[in-house]
Amino acid sequence: MSAAKLIGVGVGPGDPELLTLKAMRALGEANVIAHFAKAGNPSHSRAIVAAHLRADVAELPLLYPVTTELPKCGAGYRDAISGFYDAAAEKIAVHLDAGRTVAVICEGDPLFYGSYMHLHARLATRFAAEIVAGVTGMSGCWSAAGMPIAQGDDVFTVLPATLPEAELTRRLADADAAVVMKVGRHLPKLRRALAQSGRLLRAIYVERGTMAEEKMIPLTAKLDDDAPYFAVVLVPGWNERPGAEE
Amino acid sequence: MSAAKLIGVGVGPGDPELLTLKAMRALGEANVIAHFAKAGNPSHSRAIVAAHLRADVAELPLLYPVTTELPKCGAGYRDAISGFYDAAAEKIAVHLDAGRTVAVICEGDPLFYGSYMHLHARLATRFAAEIVAGVTGMSGCWSAAGMPIAQGDDVFTVLPATLPEAELTRRLADADAAVVMKVGRHLPKLRRALAQSGRLLRAIYVERGTMAEEKMIPLTAKLDDDAPYFAVVLVPGWNERPGAEE
Repeated sequence: MSAAKLIGVGVGPGDPELLTLKAMRALGEANVIAHFAKAGNPSHSRAIVAAHLRADVAELPLLYPVTTELPKCGAGYRDAISGFYDAAAEKIAVHLDAGRTVAVICEGDPLFYGSYMHLHARLATRFAAEIVAGVTGMSGCWSAAGMPIAQGDDVFTVLPATLPEAELTRRLADADAAVVMKVGRHLPKLRRALAQSGRLLRAIYVERGTMAEEKMIPLTAKLDDDAPYFAVVLVPGWNERPGAEE
Repeated sequence: MSAAKLIGVGVGPGDPELLTLKAMRALGEANVIAHFAKAGNPSHSRAIVAAHLRADVAELPLLYPVTTELPKCGAGYRDAISGFYDAAAEKIAVHLDAGRTVAVICEGDPLFYGSYMHLHARLATRFAAEIVAGVTGMSGCWSAAGMPIAQGDDVFTVLPATLPEAELTRRLADADAAVVMKVGRHLPKLRRALAQSGRLLRAIYVERGTMAEEKMIPLTAKLDDDAPYFAVVLVPGWNERPGAEE
């Protein structure tokens, strides 16, 4: 029996070839593979590693509660999510108490805007825990676009599209390079903020970067406002300033 | 003979196990492996992939010119660096013109504060070019520290320590989470900016993250001001606010 260990395993942005050798080793050693998913939906992280799962490995799906009826900033939502992470951590703890190695597979990098950190915070003080860094979704996007994002002394910022329009505008104008996440229904607001901050002409819209269904176009060429929650907008810094160097 | 192709290959933060499967494939397919290094120093990216280099592969070291005598903001420095990248691109173009595949191995991620983008800008319009995204140095650092860096609607910022003290202070106070790069001789100024922005107590100092010689301590526990150019300081966002969620 292996020693009890929790491993947060980054599995990268979507292309299964962007798994690291260390992630492959963790998948090979784990007794249990845990993955987050929305109830009724396939797990994205599981799809990325599907070809590498051992036939005999135990799987532990962690299904987010349905919270669409609850306002996101409300106490009801917070309680539901917090209770979900408590319960998920305890399901994992059962395996760790039995001396098993549990790998929690995570899209992108486990500690960069990921759900895994909620399990880590609950379990890393009780059990041995290890993180396998992964290629982030945003690296996957700018690499697929062949788009240098930041260079030299650039200030680079990651912004959620959920911010109010004035704050998005101010922060976009204040950074040399930016990535805006969680675009979804915020796209019309984001377009205005990009225009007001002088960044619209260099903004690139990306859906499902590195995946088979990847969609990538200059934002000015996107004629509708339909965007999934996971779409991102890249605002490259260096690329627009070749004169600074050449 | 393979078709001429330029590949910018991210080889991750230092731990050779953080190479991706795609990087391994690129190393296996390339006729020529190019790597940047300072004249007289071993190449960091080459050290990361050393165990995976084919015995018959051609190597093309690209040695930065010695510019310590030149002020970094001056035209002399800019001309020397620009000329260096021109010459490096032409050395690679000779191989591409001969129909070879050239992999330029890059620490971290090729398009995130890397030298590769200077080659990409010069060659990607003339030749087929592909990017293999890599795990960034900063992901390697916070993963090694087991330190969740950003979550939910956090604003995350990457700052060069070269910024003036007042600007560093303002930007640190304005972000939920931050990574400060290129610490080196700027450490005393950075300490003051972190204190003034209320971020000093959560700052983590990291040297050589994920490597055998890794050094990682709370910045307040670091008693001297000695820091190499490549040291980073992590300022986690979420970690200090468990009350927001639990």
